[in-house]
Amino acid sequence: MNKEHYFDWAATSPADEDILQESLAISIKSWGNPSSVHQIGKNAALVLQEARSTAAKVLGVKAENIYFTSGGTESDQIALLSILNKPQKGTVLISSIEHPAIREQALALKKCGCNVVQIPCDSKGIICVESLEKLITNDTMLVCVMAVNNETGAIQPIYQIADLLKKVSQGKRKPKFHVDCVQAAGKIPLDLNYDGIDSAALSAHKICGPRGIGIFYSKNPIEPFLCGGGQEKGIRSGTENLFGAVAFSKCLERYFIKNNDNLAIQKYNEQVEITNSFIKKLSELKGCTIIPENRANLEDSSLYSPWVIQASFKNIPGNVMLRALDSKGFFISTGSACSTKKQSRPILEAMNVNKDLRESSVRFSFGPHTTQKAIDELFDAVKEVNATFNK
Amino acid sequence: MNKEHYFDWAATSPADEDILQESLAISIKSWGNPSSVHQIGKNAALVLQEARSTAAKVLGVKAENIYFTSGGTESDQIALLSILNKPQKGTVLISSIEHPAIREQALALKKCGCNVVQIPCDSKGIICVESLEKLITNDTMLVCVMAVNNETGAIQPIYQIADLLKKVSQGKRKPKFHVDCVQAAGKIPLDLNYDGIDSAALSAHKICGPRGIGIFYSKNPIEPFLCGGGQEKGIRSGTENLFGAVAFSKCLERYFIKNNDNLAIQKYNEQVEITNSFIKKLSELKGCTIIPENRANLEDSSLYSPWVIQASFKNIPGNVMLRALDSKGFFISTGSACSTKKQSRPILEAMNVNKDLRESSVRFSFGPHTTQKAIDELFDAVKEVNATFNK
Repeated sequence: MNKEHYFDWAATSPADEDILQESLAISIKSWGNPSSVHQIGKNAALVLQEARSTAAKVLGVKAENIYFTSGGTESDQIALLSILNKPQKGTVLISSIEHPAIREQALALKKCGCNVVQIPCDSKGIICVESLEKLITNDTMLVCVMAVNNETGAIQPIYQIADLLKKVSQGKRKPKFHVDCVQAAGKIPLDLNYDGIDSAALSAHKICGPRGIGIFYSKNPIEPFLCGGGQEKGIRSGTENLFGAVAFSKCLERYFIKNNDNLAIQKYNEQVEITNSFIKKLSELKGCTIIPENRANLEDSSLYSPWVIQASFKNIPGNVMLRALDSKGFFISTGSACSTKKQSRPILEAMNVNKDLRESSVRFSFGPHTTQKAIDELFDAVKEVNATFNK
Repeated sequence: MNKEHYFDWAATSPADEDILQESLAISIKSWGNPSSVHQIGKNAALVLQEARSTAAKVLGVKAENIYFTSGGTESDQIALLSILNKPQKGTVLISSIEHPAIREQALALKKCGCNVVQIPCDSKGIICVESLEKLITNDTMLVCVMAVNNETGAIQPIYQIADLLKKVSQGKRKPKFHVDCVQAAGKIPLDLNYDGIDSAALSAHKICGPRGIGIFYSKNPIEPFLCGGGQEKGIRSGTENLFGAVAFSKCLERYFIKNNDNLAIQKYNEQVEITNSFIKKLSELKGCTIIPENRANLEDSSLYSPWVIQASFKNIPGNVMLRALDSKGFFISTGSACSTKKQSRPILEAMNVNKDLRESSVRFSFGPHTTQKAIDELFDAVKEVNATFNK
């Protein structure tokens, strides 16, 4: 199957084979348990520590604040579940457009006495910082807002939220601020070290790494609720996945976009232009609505990740568009892959996108190996499908 | 470093390179997100399903009852945390010799209102079924007893416990019975399908598979507390680790010992003889005490996994023996690799092993690639170290 016509990078990415092969070779060579105290264990621990240092250096944070996990979901769970350690479980504020890894896990915490409140977003798919400010109370323990939404690409105001949380909690305990960066790390310029961001979740398989490895970043040690053998300084128990850790660190080196990396930012800006051109052509198709609608106005393009585009096609249920493109060898998605079993579109609902638009909405997502030519071919295929429904 | 002289298989095993390479090739080819509904996703889902079916067939259970996780620890956490879904959290009974993946996680549940009670073991390191019976009350929600202890190799009476739980709960709700099989699957004959066993945890890296992949077996669907995108039918959220799942299924095919597999059982019995011979020679060394002591009496050898031996050497702190052997190129451990940061030996304490014996105790653990010759060489090395302390 043609990788070139794969436009579902927000679900997962084709892996960079060189990184996987090299990492497997390292893992096979360093096959010990990093917690074992003999030479074989120490050798594995050293390789793990190198992977951690590499990742930390790229992310601009301290190596001691990087914990390898099994993926983005577990990294989010670690942040959320840590509040179960408190006698008074308090309130968790989550954005209304979080990935299910946050949303579903937060809702589960209610069974243990947590209060969970959703922060509304505006019609642009962006969390309202003012609304968040009003929701903060003395018992707010944790605030979770993702960096980039996985369905619309909307970039969330995480730095303003970090500032706000510091401002409103002067002289008292600051609520922890956790940021799901799964669609941001290696996709848009990102500063994890920004003051006020307490923790973050990252995943390798969105940036050409293996499935099954993630990072939980935590500026300060947290008390873990998920426990076991005490690996990763107690924050994430379970024998360490050396293959995954090595591979992820290599992917971060290759793809992470630092705020001060001019070359990476130049490439990013090139993608913004390519995506804008795609959005412009789409929005001119009869019956097509870019979601959120303001995104068709390219002046707003800095509000969105250029890697994720949501669009609705009148008279064409999302699944029909998906299957029509699939049969032509073009691979897209409707909602997130993590929600395919459910018919609802909670993120679009939170944005007040109407039912007709929601049901005929699909996601196009790109990655570093997506070519301009492939995007042009995608457009032609979409145009063709659309023409049969919207004459 | 010499794999041949590696005797810490209970911590982790050297991977079978052919399985890892083959699984990586499959994973690279089937790189989609198994939850995606397009061809690339479906192809990945198919490969994942094949791995599940292979594992299920080998384990003698239904494929629909196999859930891939990130390892033994997470599989244990899934079982334990599921009780947080209940309004009344009830009581969890755990054996006093559980791995920290169970013990530490169970203790954390206390913070959410669970009652956690430890089931005593006898001096042989085996859980007393009679003691367990006395501890069961109407609010017992979950019983956790491992199949094989990771420090002594003591085989636990999991089938008798399954029978007991059925017997005592006739006409009422049966407590769930979860079995940590990390040191049992692929090590001793095992029947996961035994009536009364509700769930089990398995790990690949103990049987020559990659680190970072495990199985949670559950005879019936459970309500998950760890939530997210709903993969693995909601039981284990997070994009599926296809490489790991494929590799684990291949390792199970190669190493799992079914109750009715005569060839595998013959090889197992051969190992019992080899281990008995090693134990006999050890126990004749001046100052050496096999732990538990009854194990030196080879009539009890059916009570222990032949892959794990715990022994104490008078006047030689465990770490000293470990380092002395390490410098000779022989790799052993003291307690479990998962507890190296802690000095205490809770499992030996639970067995009432006295402090002197505990502090001078080490673990030898073998695997399918361990040769008779290597074990003989290990014995010679141990004898030499011992002789310098116990003249």
